[in-house]
Amino acid sequence: MPPEHVFPTDEWRIVESRFSESYYAQCETVFALSNGYLGVRGAFDEGRPARSPGVFVSGFHEQWPILHAEEAYGLARTGQTIVNVPDATTLKLYVDDEPLFVDTARMRQYARVLDMRAGTLTRELVWETAAGKQVVVRSCRIVSLAHRHLMAVIYDVVLPEDSAPIAIASMILNRQDVHLREDPGRRQIADPRRATLLPHRVLNAEVVEIQSDRILLGYRTTNSHMTLGVGVEHVLEAPPEVRLNVTLDADVGEAVLTADARPGVPIRIIKYITYQSSRTGPSAELVARCGRTLDRAIRDGPDALLASQRSELDRFWDDADVVVVSDQGARMRQAIRWNLFQVCQATWRVEGAGVPAKGLTAQAYEGHYFWDTEVYLLPFLSYTQPRIARNLLRFRHSMLSRARARAREINHDGALFPWRTINGDEASAAYQAGTAQYHINADIAFAVRRYLNTSDDDAFLVEAGAEILVETARMWAALGFYAEDGRFHVHNVTGPDEYTTVVNDNTYTNLMARLNLNYAAASLRGMRVDRPAAHAALVAELRLRPEEPDAWERAAAAMYVPYDERRGMHPQDANFLEREVWDLDGTPPDHFPLLLHYHPLVIYRHQVIKQADVVLAMFLLGNEFSQEQKRANFDYYDALTTGDSSLSACIQSIVAAEIGEDQIALEYFHSALLMDLADASGNTSDGVHIASAAGVWQALVFGFGGVREYEGALSITPHLPATWDSLTFSLRFRGRRLEVHLTHDDETYTLVDGAPLELTVRGEPHLLAAGTGLTRPAVPTQPVPSGAGLGPETAARRS
Amino acid sequence: MPPEHVFPTDEWRIVESRFSESYYAQCETVFALSNGYLGVRGAFDEGRPARSPGVFVSGFHEQWPILHAEEAYGLARTGQTIVNVPDATTLKLYVDDEPLFVDTARMRQYARVLDMRAGTLTRELVWETAAGKQVVVRSCRIVSLAHRHLMAVIYDVVLPEDSAPIAIASMILNRQDVHLREDPGRRQIADPRRATLLPHRVLNAEVVEIQSDRILLGYRTTNSHMTLGVGVEHVLEAPPEVRLNVTLDADVGEAVLTADARPGVPIRIIKYITYQSSRTGPSAELVARCGRTLDRAIRDGPDALLASQRSELDRFWDDADVVVVSDQGARMRQAIRWNLFQVCQATWRVEGAGVPAKGLTAQAYEGHYFWDTEVYLLPFLSYTQPRIARNLLRFRHSMLSRARARAREINHDGALFPWRTINGDEASAAYQAGTAQYHINADIAFAVRRYLNTSDDDAFLVEAGAEILVETARMWAALGFYAEDGRFHVHNVTGPDEYTTVVNDNTYTNLMARLNLNYAAASLRGMRVDRPAAHAALVAELRLRPEEPDAWERAAAAMYVPYDERRGMHPQDANFLEREVWDLDGTPPDHFPLLLHYHPLVIYRHQVIKQADVVLAMFLLGNEFSQEQKRANFDYYDALTTGDSSLSACIQSIVAAEIGEDQIALEYFHSALLMDLADASGNTSDGVHIASAAGVWQALVFGFGGVREYEGALSITPHLPATWDSLTFSLRFRGRRLEVHLTHDDETYTLVDGAPLELTVRGEPHLLAAGTGLTRPAVPTQPVPSGAGLGPETAARRS
Repeated sequence: MPPEHVFPTDEWRIVESRFSESYYAQCETVFALSNGYLGVRGAFDEGRPARSPGVFVSGFHEQWPILHAEEAYGLARTGQTIVNVPDATTLKLYVDDEPLFVDTARMRQYARVLDMRAGTLTRELVWETAAGKQVVVRSCRIVSLAHRHLMAVIYDVVLPEDSAPIAIASMILNRQDVHLREDPGRRQIADPRRATLLPHRVLNAEVVEIQSDRILLGYRTTNSHMTLGVGVEHVLEAPPEVRLNVTLDADVGEAVLTADARPGVPIRIIKYITYQSSRTGPSAELVARCGRTLDRAIRDGPDALLASQRSELDRFWDDADVVVVSDQGARMRQAIRWNLFQVCQATWRVEGAGVPAKGLTAQAYEGHYFWDTEVYLLPFLSYTQPRIARNLLRFRHSMLSRARARAREINHDGALFPWRTINGDEASAAYQAGTAQYHINADIAFAVRRYLNTSDDDAFLVEAGAEILVETARMWAALGFYAEDGRFHVHNVTGPDEYTTVVNDNTYTNLMARLNLNYAAASLRGMRVDRPAAHAALVAELRLRPEEPDAWERAAAAMYVPYDERRGMHPQDANFLEREVWDLDGTPPDHFPLLLHYHPLVIYRHQVIKQADVVLAMFLLGNEFSQEQKRANFDYYDALTTGDSSLSACIQSIVAAEIGEDQIALEYFHSALLMDLADASGNTSDGVHIASAAGVWQALVFGFGGVREYEGALSITPHLPATWDSLTFSLRFRGRRLEVHLTHDDETYTLVDGAPLELTVRGEPHLLAAGTGLTRPAVPTQPVPSGAGLGPETAARRS
Repeated sequence: MPPEHVFPTDEWRIVESRFSESYYAQCETVFALSNGYLGVRGAFDEGRPARSPGVFVSGFHEQWPILHAEEAYGLARTGQTIVNVPDATTLKLYVDDEPLFVDTARMRQYARVLDMRAGTLTRELVWETAAGKQVVVRSCRIVSLAHRHLMAVIYDVVLPEDSAPIAIASMILNRQDVHLREDPGRRQIADPRRATLLPHRVLNAEVVEIQSDRILLGYRTTNSHMTLGVGVEHVLEAPPEVRLNVTLDADVGEAVLTADARPGVPIRIIKYITYQSSRTGPSAELVARCGRTLDRAIRDGPDALLASQRSELDRFWDDADVVVVSDQGARMRQAIRWNLFQVCQATWRVEGAGVPAKGLTAQAYEGHYFWDTEVYLLPFLSYTQPRIARNLLRFRHSMLSRARARAREINHDGALFPWRTINGDEASAAYQAGTAQYHINADIAFAVRRYLNTSDDDAFLVEAGAEILVETARMWAALGFYAEDGRFHVHNVTGPDEYTTVVNDNTYTNLMARLNLNYAAASLRGMRVDRPAAHAALVAELRLRPEEPDAWERAAAAMYVPYDERRGMHPQDANFLEREVWDLDGTPPDHFPLLLHYHPLVIYRHQVIKQADVVLAMFLLGNEFSQEQKRANFDYYDALTTGDSSLSACIQSIVAAEIGEDQIALEYFHSALLMDLADASGNTSDGVHIASAAGVWQALVFGFGGVREYEGALSITPHLPATWDSLTFSLRFRGRRLEVHLTHDDETYTLVDGAPLELTVRGEPHLLAAGTGLTRPAVPTQPVPSGAGLGPETAARRS
C-alpha cells in the first residue's frame, strides 16, 4: 500500500498532508498533471524545493548527433530528446518580504490534493509568518482535458486578520537551457534510463512580447527546427490598487504583483498558460494562436474550465473504473484509480504523437515512445477508450515511411519500426537492446489485430491496418531463413527481456512473428473477398506480389519455436538453457537493478530475467500454450525474474492468476499497483511508469477478471482472489458495453447495449442480448500452494 | 605486385619517380618514417598537397569522456587518442617569390626515395620556374633509430646557372588543434577505423621560446595532462649574408631564410627536431632536455647521424631479412623488405609503450594498441629481435594493475587486459567487438610462453611472466562455468573474427584459454621446483591459494571445444553452423568491406568471416589439430572469409601452405605483401597495417618456411612454392642463430652459434652443433588442385 504517512486513504484523491523532505521528489511525479498534449510535473508553486521540475509538450523535441564512441554502419545517428519547455507554473509569495517555501515555512495547515474526478491539483495551506501573521494560500492547478493547449493556475491569498505588504512573483522560466548558465560543467548522470543533458542551447527565442498583462514567446529549437508558442496571461481579482509589473527576456519572464493586503480581503491571480507547437510552422503563427487561446480562456473563465474538466473525467471513469471491494478496498481503489488516471493523463488528448514511456510526467527515457504503447496501453484503451486507441495506431501508421526507410537502411524488406523514437526515426543508439528488438513489428501488428477485433471500426483495416500488416510481415519474411532442419529461424534478435540480448529464435519473437505473418496473409485474403477495390489498390500501392502472402504463411507454418521436451517448457531462446544460472540468492540486495551494477556481458551470459518474456507470450498468445506448459514455464521463469523492469510485474500477475497462483498474482499486482505511489522501483521521481499503470488495469481485468480474446472471441474465466469481496469492471467490445461484477457468491455479466454477444464464461458459451445479464454462481477459489520458486527472497523481489 | 608506375623495382628502395595525384595520400603512409618513439608521415616537405600529415610521439595521447548514446554499467568511460604533435618537417621554398609545390611545378627531374638500408627519405628534384630558371632541390629526412628523440631534415637548394632571390620558410605547426581555427564545424567521418576528431583544444603551450635560431616549445594536454617538449634548430651552411628570421606563437613557428642565390652556390639548412614527452613531468624540464638533445645533434653533425642510422639498420637486417629468389625476385624482395622495415620502424625504440595498430604512421584507430602486438608482431620479434619482444612484454606487464582494476570493475577475478588502449585503460567503447574479446588475455599468455620458449631470458618468468600467467588464468577460471554436461564453457565472448560477436564457446578462445590455464599451472609448478624463493614470493604477493592451479587444470581438462562430428570440423563457436550462410557471390563488390555497408546485426547473424579465427587457432595451436581437421576447417572457413580484416591474409596463407594449397597460400601471401604498397585494402592512406607487415614475415617463415615451435621444440617442414627458386631466412632460438636456405634441390640448416640444437626437419629429429649445417635433399612440391571454395570470386577477394 502507498506510504500512509504521505498519502492517507482517500478513494478519489491523493492527499499530501505535510511536506516530506524524503518524498517531495517522488511527489513531483505523483502530482504531475497532463492531458496527453501538455504535461507539468508536480513541483511546488514556488518552484522550490524542486528535484527536476518541468513542462512538456507532446512530440516537441530537440535532436542531436549521436557521437558513437565506435562507429558502425546503420547505427542510429540522431538522438531525440523531449524538450523541457518554458515553465509558467511558478508563483512565489512574499509577505512582509518574507518568502513562502513549504520546506521551511511554519505551517498551521497544509494539504496538497490531486483530485482524480475534478482533474485538479490543489493546495491549501495556512502559513504563520515570522511576524506571527496567518496567511491562507490556496492554489489550484489544472491541465485542461477539454482544451488541449491550455493550463491554468488559480492562486488565492488572504490574511484573515492581518495587514501586510505582499508580493506575488509569477514566473516563466526556460528550464531546458538554464543549466547552461547555472552549471555549465554539469556532468551527465550515468543512468541509461534518464535523459541526455544537452550541452547546447535548445530554445532560441523568435518572439519576446509583452502585451499589457500578457506574455507571448515564440521559440525555434536549434537542431530539430521545431517551433513553439507560449502565452501567459494574468487575470487579477483583487482590490483595484493592486499592481502588476511585467518584465521579460528570452529565458525569463516575471509578473510581479504588489499589494498591501488588508485583513480578510482576498487577492486572486488566475494565470492562464498556453502552448502551441509545430514541426515547421513559423513561431509567430503559433504565438498568434496562443493569443486566441488566451482570449477564449479568459472569456470562459475558471468555472467553465473546471466544469469541463470534470465532465471529461466523468466520461473517462465511466468506462475505465475498476472497483475492488475488500478489507483494504478504499486504499486499493485509491491506488488503482491513481494508476488509471495516469493513463488518462498520458493519452486523453494525444493526437498525432505517441505516448512516452513516462507520459508527459518527466524527461526520462528522452520522452521516447517504445512498444509500451502497443502491448501495455492499447489493451486498456481498446477496451475502454477506442477513440484513443485509434489515434495511437494512426500515429504508428504515419511512421511507416520512416520505418520503410529504416528497413532499407539496415538491409531488410518491408518496414522496421523504431525501437525508440519521437519523430519516427530510430533513436536507439545501442542496438543490442534497441534495434535488435525486432519484435516491435509484431507487437504493432498484434495491436492492430486487437483493435480490429475489439472495436467496430472495420474501416481501419483499409485506412491503415493492412499497410502495417503487409510491411511488417515482409520484414519478418526477409529477416528469417530456412535452416537445414527445414524450419524458419529468426536469428540475432532481442526479445522483451533485456537481460538476454541478440539471441537466436527468441520464443516470444518467433511466436509473435508467426502471428504477424499469418494475420497479414489472412487479412489480405479477407480484404480480397470483402473489399476487392481496396485490396486491388493496396496491392498496387505496395507492389504486392501474389506469392508474398503464400510465402508468409509458409514461413509461419515452418516457424521454429524452441521447446524443451524433457522439461516440458519453452526456452526463452534457442540457447537459453545452456547459460549459467544467475545466483539471485547470492546477489546483494543493493545490486538491483542488475543493469546498474554489472557489465552487460556479465548479465547477458546468465539465465536471469529483467522482465516477462515467455510469460508475456503466454498471456498474449495464451491459446498457443497448454495449461501444463503455462505452469512449467511460469515456474521456471518466475524463479529467474528480477523484475528490474517495471513492465514485468503486471504480466507475471496475469499469468500467475491464470494458473491459480493467487498469492503470487496478488504480490505482483501490488508491486505494479505501487510501482510509483510507493516508489517500489526507486525511481518514481523520474516519472510515472505509464506502461505499468496501464498494466494495473490488465492485471485486474485479464488477471483476476480472466478476460481473454482469442481469434476475435471473448471469454472470461475469473480468478477473484480469496481476500477480495468483489471485482467490478466494464468493457467495450465491438460497439457494445459489457459490465462484469464478480463476487465469491455469484458472477454477473451484463450486456448494456449493442448487438447480441457470444461470451464464453469459464469455458461455457453464452449468448447475451442487449439489456440482459447472465448471473451464475461463482466457482470457489482454491487456496493453491505457492510454487517451488517462491522463497522469501523471491517474494522480496516482488514487493 | 606494387604499382610499377609508382614504385619501380628496386630491391632496397621505394622510389616515387613522379608526383601522382591519385597516390600521394597513400604515399604519406608508404614514405612514413619512424623509430618506434617518433613517427612522421611521408607528407611533402612543402606541407602540401597533403591528405593527413602528422607527427606522432609514442604513447603521447589525449583523453576525452566517451559520451555513450546509451549508457550501461562498465562501459569504457575515457577515450584515448594519440596526439598529432606539432609538425616541424615543413620547408617551403620560394624562388623569385614563386612557391614550389610538387603537384603544380614543372619538373625536370624528380625522385623521392625511401632507402631501407640508409633509413632515409630523400627527395631530389630539378624544378624549372616560370622564369625558366633551373632549381636543384635535395632534401633528406631522417628519424634516428640510434637517438630516439631526434629527427632531422637536411635541405639543399642550388641554382646551377641562375641568380634569384630565394626564401625558405621553415615551419612548425600545431596540426592537432588547427582544425578548431580552420574548420570548426568539421564533421566526424563515419569510419570506425579512423581517429576521433577532438572538438577541444588539446595542446596548451606552457613554453614558447626563441633562442637565436632555436625554437623551444612546451605543451600540456588538456585532459590527459601529459607534457611535451619540442625543440627545433636550424643550422645554415650558406653564404654569410643569408638571413634567418624566426617568429613564434603557441601554434605556429616560422624561420624564414632569405638569400640572393648565386649560380652554383648551394644553400643548406639542416633542421634538427626533437621531442620529449612525459606523463606528468613539467614541460619546462622537457624543453631543457630538448635543448641538450639539439646541442648534441649539432655537435655530432649530419654525417654521424646518417652513419649511425645505417649501422642500426645493418643490425636489423642481419636478423630480419628474408630472401626469396624467383622470377620476380627483386620486386618481391623489395616488397618484403618494405613490410619488414615497417615493423622495424614501429618497434625499434618502443620503450615503455605499445605498438599502435598503424605504428606511428597515422592517427587511425586512435593510436591504440590491440592484440596485434602479441599475435602478429611478437613472433617475428621473438625470433629476430628478442630485445624488442622483451620490451613489449614488459610494457604489458606494466598494465597489470589497470587490468586487475578492470577485471574487478566488470565483475571478474584476476586481470582483464584492455582490448584497445594507450595507457592501459580499456578504451573500447563498443563492447561486442571490444571488451568481449577476452581472448586478449590468452593471446598475451601465449606470447609470454613463446618468448620464454624462444629466448634465453629465463629470468623473465619471475620478473613479469608468472604474474601475467596467474592473473590471466584467474580471469578464465572466473569467466567460464561448468554446465550440466560437466564441461567448462565460456559464454558471451567474441573471438578474433569480428563478424560474429558475443557467442558461446568460441573455439579459438576456448583453446587459447585452455593453454593459458594449463601453462599458468605448469609454470607455477616449475617455479616451485626451480626457484622456490621466487615462487613463495609470488604466492604471497598474489595471495595465491594452493587449490587455484588445480582448479585451472581442472577447467582446462574439462574445457568444451565445439566439434562437428559429421563434418569433421570445428565450428567457430557453439552455434556457428546454425547461422544462415552469407551469399558472398551475390554481394556487390563495392559492398566490401561489409562493415561499411551492413548493420552489425545483419553481419553477425550470418556465417561470414572478417578474419582468420579457427584458422588462426590451427596455426598457433597446430599440434592440437589433425591434418584432416586442418583441411576440413580450412576449406570450410576459407569459403566464408571476406578478408575484410588485414589480419587475415597472412594467417590464411600459413595454413594454406601447411595443408599443401600452394596456390592459395601464394595468393594470400601476395595479398598481405601488397596490403599497403598496392593499397589492396583501400585505406593505405590511413596508415601502415603493421600486423600484416609482420605477418608477411610469418607467412614466409612459418608458412613457406614451415617453422613451428610446439612445447618448446623447434620443427621445420618447408613448403617452398613451385614458382620460387629459393627462400633464405634466419632465426634466433634460445640464444642461437639458425640459418635456413631452401631450394627445390636441397635444404640447408646451419646452426651458426650457441649450444647444440634439436631440430625436427620434416618430422625427423636432428641434433645440430654450432658451426655445422644439415643439408638434405628437398621434397618436390606437388601441384595441388585448389579447394572447392576457390572460384574466381574467392580469388578476387584474396587479391
